Amino acid sequence: MKKNILVIPGDGIGPEVTTWGKAALEKIGEIFGHEFTFEEALMGHAAIEVTGEPLPDETLEKARQSDAILFGAIGHAKYDNDPSLKVRPEQGLLKIRKELGLFANLRPILLFDELLQASSIKPEILRGTDILFFRELTGDVYFGEKTRSEDRNTASDLMIYHRYEVERIAHKAYQAAQQRNKRLCSVDKANVLESSRLWRETVQEIAKQYPDVETEHMFIDNAAMQLIKNPKKFDVVLTANLFGDILTDEASQIAGSMGMLASASVGESTGFFEPIHGSAHDIAGKDLANPLASILSAALMLEIGFGLKEEAKLLVDTIDQVLKEGFRTHDIADQNTNRFKVLGTAEMGKLVLK
Amino acid sequence: MKKNILVIPGDGIGPEVTTWGKAALEKIGEIFGHEFTFEEALMGHAAIEVTGEPLPDETLEKARQSDAILFGAIGHAKYDNDPSLKVRPEQGLLKIRKELGLFANLRPILLFDELLQASSIKPEILRGTDILFFRELTGDVYFGEKTRSEDRNTASDLMIYHRYEVERIAHKAYQAAQQRNKRLCSVDKANVLESSRLWRETVQEIAKQYPDVETEHMFIDNAAMQLIKNPKKFDVVLTANLFGDILTDEASQIAGSMGMLASASVGESTGFFEPIHGSAHDIAGKDLANPLASILSAALMLEIGFGLKEEAKLLVDTIDQVLKEGFRTHDIADQNTNRFKVLGTAEMGKLVLK
Ligand SMILES: CC(C)[C@H](C(=O)O)[C@@H](O)C(=O)O
Ligand SMILES: CC(C)[C@H](C(=O)O)[C@@H](O)C(=O)O
Repeated sequence: MKKNILVIPGDGIGPEVTTWGKAALEKIGEIFGHEFTFEEALMGHAAIEVTGEPLPDETLEKARQSDAILFGAIGHAKYDNDPSLKVRPEQGLLKIRKELGLFANLRPILLFDELLQASSIKPEILRGTDILFFRELTGDVYFGEKTRSEDRNTASDLMIYHRYEVERIAHKAYQAAQQRNKRLCSVDKANVLESSRLWRETVQEIAKQYPDVETEHMFIDNAAMQLIKNPKKFDVVLTANLFGDILTDEASQIAGSMGMLASASVGESTGFFEPIHGSAHDIAGKDLANPLASILSAALMLEIGFGLKEEAKLLVDTIDQVLKEGFRTHDIADQNTNRFKVLGTAEMGKLVLK
Repeated sequence: MKKNILVIPGDGIGPEVTTWGKAALEKIGEIFGHEFTFEEALMGHAAIEVTGEPLPDETLEKARQSDAILFGAIGHAKYDNDPSLKVRPEQGLLKIRKELGLFANLRPILLFDELLQASSIKPEILRGTDILFFRELTGDVYFGEKTRSEDRNTASDLMIYHRYEVERIAHKAYQAAQQRNKRLCSVDKANVLESSRLWRETVQEIAKQYPDVETEHMFIDNAAMQLIKNPKKFDVVLTANLFGDILTDEASQIAGSMGMLASASVGESTGFFEPIHGSAHDIAGKDLANPLASILSAALMLEIGFGLKEEAKLLVDTIDQVLKEGFRTHDIADQNTNRFKVLGTAEMGKLVLK
């Protein structure tokens, strides 16, 4: 198989973790005889520094021409501390999602047995959990009109959904549920929001086409609670952009750490694969970041982007093996025992490749 | 002290738990020689059934005339399953919040030592947690304009904040932080939302007036994660209406159960006190609900509404005692042991009063 992969390292710990996601793809190419070629491009703060734009045209052009994109992380404290800045790193990520039509963000909550202890949640609550989130990614309050009054004292964002936006992601989520445990939980706030009532109505309609899947509707506040109270009860979770952002970060505690979760954004064409963690500037460049989410992003690219199941499985199994042998990065090591061999970013990356 | 208290039992388990909140107030009145008089009024589904309105004028009138309001719960599955219904129970709750100017919703996450085991989170993560949430309650996407296109295919809700709305609740939160551990975490999504950028800017300004309080700004996705990863790091959490709705429900797992949490809504005049749990129709009328959140709502009324600290403490201490003696309602009993004496709603209510 021949594939042209665009690597966008981004900001903060992005570059140091993406190195290992890319290396994993190269290694898989070697082992299975695929021809993966790589290009690089800038996005976020890294791009603003060089071009003044969070998403330079050149990056977008390269993205359109690639078969898949491996992304690192975005964001920088400078912008977080100064809300008045007009050009912001995150605009690059939002724009590329919109331009490439990446409307479905898949976030599997993959639980490595070895990491049951790394979570703040009790192992007996976690064991057996297997959730696949479908987060809508190109609509909602993320993309609705933003306003700021002239006196700067009033600000607004429009939370808006169109029926077709809900339909297309609902179909994807139901189809996935059919391949899994045939349960789908749609999360909204229909008791308060009109956009959620449209969401709920639409999902109710689509549900009729998938009678083999059991549908449940849950309010976001309740879902945020149930997710940690009893994560096993969820199979596929379908939700809007903002609610999905919140729920999937919360769910990272199920997997033991943010450093272990990858996501796939798909839609109209090229798929986009990234860790769910952020740019974590506080630990950037210190060899402390966990490269496993980037390697798992590579695995998602192989599986979802290219349909290479065996190749993806080899990466996941290798990570499982490394964890079983007691190797950990800082974020997933239990500080209170000597049971683990704690590695830096690069050592962990090398070990998995070996 | 003479006080006129309005009791609004509401829907679902509302009436059966509110009975005990009210009884607790009566008992405290007896013991301490306060003259508490009570009136009742309808709201929510219960009010729609009788008057066609979720908040009848008569209820609002009584509310304005009372010194404090004890509320139960709101909502009914009928409306949740049919998003097209125009008159909805929740409108009653939203309207009374707005009409009474209840802009600050205080949700203390009170951890009873005895309930450390009832949570899905590990006891060693929880121990020592003490968080006070300030949720803004009369702005945000809850109250912004709602639209539905004529073809019904597009729906929107306006997420909107005015600077004064952020300022007034920020002051309250900072003042509370000064009385506590002097740390305040403001939660927003300023990397994406304009309304959050206004929120962050405003909090940054107000922060300067409280130099003794340490301020942190956190994105909502990260906060949803940190809250269960390391709840002890939070002291006062200040956030918008929607984010607060989600975070406080999630935080109920810290307290072991939704059935243990109460909230106080305050602002321009009469305070409004309610459990954070919902109407839970599935267990309504079955004597399964936990009355402790309603009794704790009564305690908040005594403390925050009337400044009666000693009286409030007696209620909290009594609940602590009852838990120490091994009594539990279903939601906080560990099903796997015989260590607990599991009680129904009424038995638990009676026990606390005794
Ligand atoms: C960086 C930010 C804009 C982004 C989002 O909110 O979508 C991130 O949190 C994510 O989940 O991918
Ligand atoms: C019932 C609903 C409208 C309400 C809200 O979202 O505010 C409830 O969840 C709460 O938290 O008080």
